Amino acid sequence: MTIVRVTTPGGDYPIHIEQGRLQHLSEAVPADATAIALVTNPVVLEHYGEPVRSALARTGKPVTEVILPDGEAHKTWQSLNKIFDQLLQVGLDRKSVLVAVGGGVIGDMGGFAAACYMRGIRFIQVPTTLLAQVDSSVGGKTAINHPLGKNMIGAFYQPISVQIDPAVLATLPPREISAGLAEVVKYGLIIDAEFFDWCESNAQALRRLDPEAITYAIRRSCELKARVVSLDERESGLRAILNLGHTFGHAIEAGLGYGQWLHGEAVGCGMVQAAELSAELLGLPRQDVDRVRRVVEAIGCPTEAPDLGYERWVELMGHDKKAEGGTLRFVLMSRIGDAQCLEVDPAALRPVLARTTAVAKGG
Amino acid sequence: MTIVRVTTPGGDYPIHIEQGRLQHLSEAVPADATAIALVTNPVVLEHYGEPVRSALARTGKPVTEVILPDGEAHKTWQSLNKIFDQLLQVGLDRKSVLVAVGGGVIGDMGGFAAACYMRGIRFIQVPTTLLAQVDSSVGGKTAINHPLGKNMIGAFYQPISVQIDPAVLATLPPREISAGLAEVVKYGLIIDAEFFDWCESNAQALRRLDPEAITYAIRRSCELKARVVSLDERESGLRAILNLGHTFGHAIEAGLGYGQWLHGEAVGCGMVQAAELSAELLGLPRQDVDRVRRVVEAIGCPTEAPDLGYERWVELMGHDKKAEGGTLRFVLMSRIGDAQCLEVDPAALRPVLARTTAVAKGG
Repeated sequence: MTIVRVTTPGGDYPIHIEQGRLQHLSEAVPADATAIALVTNPVVLEHYGEPVRSALARTGKPVTEVILPDGEAHKTWQSLNKIFDQLLQVGLDRKSVLVAVGGGVIGDMGGFAAACYMRGIRFIQVPTTLLAQVDSSVGGKTAINHPLGKNMIGAFYQPISVQIDPAVLATLPPREISAGLAEVVKYGLIIDAEFFDWCESNAQALRRLDPEAITYAIRRSCELKARVVSLDERESGLRAILNLGHTFGHAIEAGLGYGQWLHGEAVGCGMVQAAELSAELLGLPRQDVDRVRRVVEAIGCPTEAPDLGYERWVELMGHDKKAEGGTLRFVLMSRIGDAQCLEVDPAALRPVLARTTAVAKGG
Repeated sequence: MTIVRVTTPGGDYPIHIEQGRLQHLSEAVPADATAIALVTNPVVLEHYGEPVRSALARTGKPVTEVILPDGEAHKTWQSLNKIFDQLLQVGLDRKSVLVAVGGGVIGDMGGFAAACYMRGIRFIQVPTTLLAQVDSSVGGKTAINHPLGKNMIGAFYQPISVQIDPAVLATLPPREISAGLAEVVKYGLIIDAEFFDWCESNAQALRRLDPEAITYAIRRSCELKARVVSLDERESGLRAILNLGHTFGHAIEAGLGYGQWLHGEAVGCGMVQAAELSAELLGLPRQDVDRVRRVVEAIGCPTEAPDLGYERWVELMGHDKKAEGGTLRFVLMSRIGDAQCLEVDPAALRPVLARTTAVAKGG
């Protein structure tokens, strides 16, 4: 088993990564827990209900199942309240533990419920998508959506441990694997050139979920994200480099309508665009831009952005919530493995959009 | 101006105590705040709308007023969501500040809203009741009620400062002053015999809100609560002594129906009962029991509990949320100024109830 240790001012916890980890979930439940709340969704239960239930049953502790509807549309107060209602109905006390088994939506809601229930109970995160494993395992971000904005209501709340079973990825659609790999590649691009090299060489092994390759990729991603987050738990500065590709990506998602492209796909394409912009503004060598494009293609993500038109691009990027005061901020690279935030004059986008959009005549 | 500094693992902040402090609220708003959300209720606005509004206007920052209905019945998700809706509608960002002006309900909800809005914005607490000034100013407890339990959903979240203006107490009904003074006396009883002596000597000055006396009482209460809380931010042990009188008090409130007695009145009477039980079990001298009874009477709280009947008392105390596993836990004193938690055999309550209930033939 591989263990990544995450250190933050708000708490210290291990990430356990192991093929078949799901069967050993009972080991993660603290001996003094009075009860377990299993928060999950019907899709996860269909695939992994049996191993998860028997593992938790082995603790001998009472288990309450809270089954939430699947999908981002349900990351709402209503679902959150369903957790609270059920926990209070069965009388779970402050010494109970909440185990969230699922993708980012389940992790975000389960974590936020744990943060608020009786002002905070312990929380174990069991991410079952690649994106959740490499992204939301580290950072302590929990939230629900509000009709007026995504992730607007939430808390920074650290789990007591994260339990990752790479074997569960086998049931994911290939598009979701590719989308998750975009975030993996991202860590190399922003902070670890050597890991980027490794991703280049192992793109095919990663796509077919070779156990050794995917386990290493998850581990390294968690380590790298943990390094960034430990230096900046509450997002004052450095952590912003985790948003490489996201300003373009959000514009793609919003421009096409959410759900057309997966978030990771949009980020993958956005990284190619960010590389192009980095070449314009920071002198990133052209051959490195090409490397970024090739690896994004190799992991199965789109490298050509939709043609939204220059004005629409700028408008959508200005509305990105990471934007401050209407200026456009991008995460760019001076070289692979070294990212920084930059204020950018929108005019600099024209040549980049020309080179990266499907029909390059926008605006 | 008096400043009490509160140190907790979750944050450090000052409590400013000053007659007329409301007029100087602008000083409390950080220079880099982008906007202010004023969370309050119509009763507070009626009395103090003018000084609060002009003080906040002097910051030159945009102010959004969120006016919530008054009273514990409204400490709900609906009210909380009203805050979120309004803050998002006007587009308040992460650098805005929430200023909660009101009693415990406004403080609890405003604090919880600040804890969750965009995963946490800064929060200034301006308590306008004596109970809130001496109790909820310290400890970082925020919460809303759930239909299945009070304060079940919340967070530990520290304000950046607490602003206390003892002059605002002049508009409170005398019963609320007495109820607040019960908590003041409590701090002396649990941890500071000298302060208890001082309360005995100054009961009348406190009831008539003598500026010097009430300012000192608030300051000392905050200091003493801060001392307890700083040693135990998340309620693992020591902090439980803050519940002196509360096991009896909750039974009185629940037995008569919430709202009959004020919380502080029930706690005042509960402290007399706890003193009687302390005499039974820890040898608290009888003359000290009498001192407790006399001071509770002197501050204007009831010293005779309602006759609920022995079985009902035990049942109601067993349902106290601080009870663990159905046993009865009490905070008791071996001497004035020295409290501890104790598991108690319900039978020990019989003589105590006989001596402290209005018609002493219950059960």
